[in-house]
Amino acid sequence: MFKPEIRVLDCSIRDGGLINQWQFSDEFVRANYQADCAAGVDYMEIGYKASKSQFDPEKFGKWRFCADDDIRRVVDGIEPVTKLACMVDIGRVEEKDIVPVDQSPFDMIRVACYMREVDKAIALANMIMDKGYETTINIMAVSTNIEREIDEALNDLSKTKIPSVYVVDSYGAMSSEDVTFLVNKYRVALPDKMIGIHTHNNRQLAFSNTIQAIINGATMLDASVYGIGRGPGNCCLELLLTFLQNPKYHLRPVLELIQSHYLPLREKIEWGYIIPYMITGMLNEHPRVAIAFRDSPERDNFVKFYDMLTTPEPDVTAGRK
Amino acid sequence: MFKPEIRVLDCSIRDGGLINQWQFSDEFVRANYQADCAAGVDYMEIGYKASKSQFDPEKFGKWRFCADDDIRRVVDGIEPVTKLACMVDIGRVEEKDIVPVDQSPFDMIRVACYMREVDKAIALANMIMDKGYETTINIMAVSTNIEREIDEALNDLSKTKIPSVYVVDSYGAMSSEDVTFLVNKYRVALPDKMIGIHTHNNRQLAFSNTIQAIINGATMLDASVYGIGRGPGNCCLELLLTFLQNPKYHLRPVLELIQSHYLPLREKIEWGYIIPYMITGMLNEHPRVAIAFRDSPERDNFVKFYDMLTTPEPDVTAGRK
Repeated sequence: MFKPEIRVLDCSIRDGGLINQWQFSDEFVRANYQADCAAGVDYMEIGYKASKSQFDPEKFGKWRFCADDDIRRVVDGIEPVTKLACMVDIGRVEEKDIVPVDQSPFDMIRVACYMREVDKAIALANMIMDKGYETTINIMAVSTNIEREIDEALNDLSKTKIPSVYVVDSYGAMSSEDVTFLVNKYRVALPDKMIGIHTHNNRQLAFSNTIQAIINGATMLDASVYGIGRGPGNCCLELLLTFLQNPKYHLRPVLELIQSHYLPLREKIEWGYIIPYMITGMLNEHPRVAIAFRDSPERDNFVKFYDMLTTPEPDVTAGRK
Repeated sequence: MFKPEIRVLDCSIRDGGLINQWQFSDEFVRANYQADCAAGVDYMEIGYKASKSQFDPEKFGKWRFCADDDIRRVVDGIEPVTKLACMVDIGRVEEKDIVPVDQSPFDMIRVACYMREVDKAIALANMIMDKGYETTINIMAVSTNIEREIDEALNDLSKTKIPSVYVVDSYGAMSSEDVTFLVNKYRVALPDKMIGIHTHNNRQLAFSNTIQAIINGATMLDASVYGIGRGPGNCCLELLLTFLQNPKYHLRPVLELIQSHYLPLREKIEWGYIIPYMITGMLNEHPRVAIAFRDSPERDNFVKFYDMLTTPEPDVTAGRK
């Protein structure tokens, strides 16, 4: 499908960092950037920007903070085909951490928020735009919001100049029909904005849901190399590039990166199709309970995990009698 | 999605046998059948029926032949909720191997063929029906046929009493739009028949393509436990059961089977999302070249494999100059 207005964002380091506390080596991140440039990927999201007062730099790698100097060093000397992006969470970044764009290695700063925080996200995105950056608002876990909340947030967003708003399937719970419903809703409410899609692969639907979003008019597409990301991971960048027929994209550099860097990493840290995450996706729940279970000695006791999540607890149902 | 007319067929042993030459133990196959019965799965395809003159019983396990006595022994004593099926290939089974249904453990015998063999498949399916079995015709590799061939075959099929015809994405090459195109075409040409769908997961689209086929009216659905099958495997049975909202289906027995039997098996034999199969899927090619590559010492050299399949060969392009 060739749509020239489509933009692809590689969120490997940012989303993959949720597995390893952003402990990627400089060499790894540099190889990733080099591959993205060679592949013609439009943006690479290299981590979260956050204040060092918010997280312990002993515990978290440098892509949890994205200090401008670390970024400059890691991309130094590479022809910058791919623009650099980072993400900020509401309340975890201070205005002083964000310098004007002409003093920054970043082109884009994305704002992640939950639906109830949309107005805070708008204020933060406005500040980011005032400093000259491109921006997006990524509203997480929309599969848990009722339509009234969504409509209210979209109405607030429609009055802003923020250029792009994402449908984010944080729990990997959506089917193609859900994607169609939401992307159409966002498009109608925000006719002047680009609609983005960010999927998770709990039910092996990340790629197909991204395709469905394209069919419905989304043009900002998130993906990650070899699907890296917390739990089941994301839409695979290599799959997405095979689907988009724009001649500017090239698959080969991504395959090279997978075999040189991501296959060895996958031996050390886990992501992909894993039953407990399939179960949280099916139940439209946050993966935290699956993460904890995979860290326990019973990690492969899928039946126990299923029973834990589907058997009503006595205290919860006491009122039913 | 609750459609009471939907039937689910577990093809784990038949399709998974392509990886291990059908060397599943009796205990494994019995556990699979027990789980399918507990899960409410409609059919279990337990292997291929073939003449022992066609394949070496020293090399191939018993589910390559499906001798009636082997089948009876392995399901003995289990309440038969799930009907038993096997598959036959054109030219690899003799009429004497197929006894009348009332002397057989099987309820259904499916016929696999390529588009050019549809008339042979019709003759074989008619013989199978005459002996009292349910049957289907599974036309493989339809992603490689031009529309004229498909229309001609569907026209021949429309004149038969064969109750069910499958769209088979043998190469894992189809996207949802291809599925919609083909399922709609089959439905219009064969209004009195059930349409089936059998997908492969080369591009992580097996489950989503099965969902798309359901949306378009397919009612015979193939899936396999934990996605087992040659190369990338098939649509995961556990995913499909979470999607179908028919109360007769139960997920828990399938999860139990995965943790007790399929996780340990997956340590010994390989299937799933593997880059060389992704590449053959993207190129709409038979996986045989990927199978050979994964058996070679260069199995993880994805770039070499990609170059091998995408660089024009001098002899082929000589005429181009």
